[in-house]
Amino acid sequence: MKNLGYYNGKLGEIEKLTLPVTDRAFYFGDGVYDAVMCRNNIPYLLKNHIDRIFENAHFLGIVPPISKSKLEGLIWELCPLVDGTEKFVYFHISRGSGIRNHEFTKTPANLFIMIKEQKIDNIYEKMELCTQNDIRYAMCNIKTLNLLPSVLCAENARKNGCGEGVFVRDGFVTECSHSNISILKNGKLITAPADCHILPGVTRAHLIEAAKKHGVEVVEEKYTKNELFEADEIIVTSSSKLARGVKKIDSRPVGGKDEKTLLLLQNEIYGSYINATQI
Amino acid sequence: MKNLGYYNGKLGEIEKLTLPVTDRAFYFGDGVYDAVMCRNNIPYLLKNHIDRIFENAHFLGIVPPISKSKLEGLIWELCPLVDGTEKFVYFHISRGSGIRNHEFTKTPANLFIMIKEQKIDNIYEKMELCTQNDIRYAMCNIKTLNLLPSVLCAENARKNGCGEGVFVRDGFVTECSHSNISILKNGKLITAPADCHILPGVTRAHLIEAAKKHGVEVVEEKYTKNELFEADEIIVTSSSKLARGVKKIDSRPVGGKDEKTLLLLQNEIYGSYINATQI
Repeated sequence: MKNLGYYNGKLGEIEKLTLPVTDRAFYFGDGVYDAVMCRNNIPYLLKNHIDRIFENAHFLGIVPPISKSKLEGLIWELCPLVDGTEKFVYFHISRGSGIRNHEFTKTPANLFIMIKEQKIDNIYEKMELCTQNDIRYAMCNIKTLNLLPSVLCAENARKNGCGEGVFVRDGFVTECSHSNISILKNGKLITAPADCHILPGVTRAHLIEAAKKHGVEVVEEKYTKNELFEADEIIVTSSSKLARGVKKIDSRPVGGKDEKTLLLLQNEIYGSYINATQI
Repeated sequence: MKNLGYYNGKLGEIEKLTLPVTDRAFYFGDGVYDAVMCRNNIPYLLKNHIDRIFENAHFLGIVPPISKSKLEGLIWELCPLVDGTEKFVYFHISRGSGIRNHEFTKTPANLFIMIKEQKIDNIYEKMELCTQNDIRYAMCNIKTLNLLPSVLCAENARKNGCGEGVFVRDGFVTECSHSNISILKNGKLITAPADCHILPGVTRAHLIEAAKKHGVEVVEEKYTKNELFEADEIIVTSSSKLARGVKKIDSRPVGGKDEKTLLLLQNEIYGSYINATQI
């Protein structure tokens, strides 16, 4: 199949699959999601992402309609049904279905999975970014379906010919519309702390681990927009981008002053992905 | 019919109606909504709510798939299909459909309408509320489908046996999970200013108008949680509740010190509703 959608046991092409209008994801965004890359039908770091969606569901009082191991098995089973070598696997769990009422329903949660072919862009090509005011809620550590500010940020980036938008909150860099962002400065890796304003990304954790392994000091502290522009290198991380450098922000040239460390960390992250998904 | 759902021209019972999984409301909450009460098949203040959903859609760059007058005509046409005298009419417009990508799609927007029987509760019965930290984004003036914090607030209220939850942001009262909240103090009506932290509710505007008509000074300024507890009366307004007094917040007795003014404003708001929907 060219792509695949799954909804509560029903399978089909994404464009043809339907769901009831009573799913609370539809009128409240009342659910959580996660996503992984898959190569050679091996979903990369799937356990970590399943752990996270379960933690996030638990935080919101959503009871997943499937066990962790069954969800893992299901994704392994569905991946080979879709054409291609590299694929993007998205899965979300919404609280349940019912006539619209803010208060929780007692119906079982709904599971949606979507798989499509998607190659990882050349990670060694540097990106352009543009900044945007971070107006999001204080719950960005939870991967919920309330993504409108991220949608607006990503669209603003696209309009400005950029690959990602960077959120700035009260002068401090938080994260991108669907990636984390860190900087290298004087040999240190600086990344915003994992509080309610950023998602503690799986690849961000991997970047921190890679830095420590290679003797790069890691500072999990807030850094300003000015520090972003003055950084030696800027690193954008996400499950579908892995780790990318940055060449311009708001049309101003940035980074390019510590390519050796940047490359070291990128190779570590890319190497792990390739090794783990080798057949 | 006992209730009715409408999705892009398709009609059916809400529980049986389906939509494509590609609707951006489903994975991003990328849409706007509004709602009105309907009595004797006369949707109350429908034009105001249609104006608002169009303004909100415009703000987010969503192009409604229908004109204002056609949407108005459609709602007038659908209301009589549902049983009952008093009904709740909900309508939402999402940006469009497409394989999941944060950036805007170019497909037409989707229109969803839902009508069900719903009586307005006795407005003269005072409510119990409970407070909750306001973690929402700085875009609460737009009625979007990103409603998870409101869902959590409403559920917390329900769990505590309360009819609504009150959001408190940095010590100041903003609004409720799906209502506005104002206070009477020393003969003045005090209500949070219409900034990005509250919805400029249609019934809130009506309350302000009613106060002015009856010589009650209106102060649109931030007020604290402490002022809420010390208020002479507290008034919760929304399209489906109209205007309700409050007797307890966080289990502490409140209000009850200016019932004359409260009643005057309630009668004005309730009277307008009854008169406008008389046959």
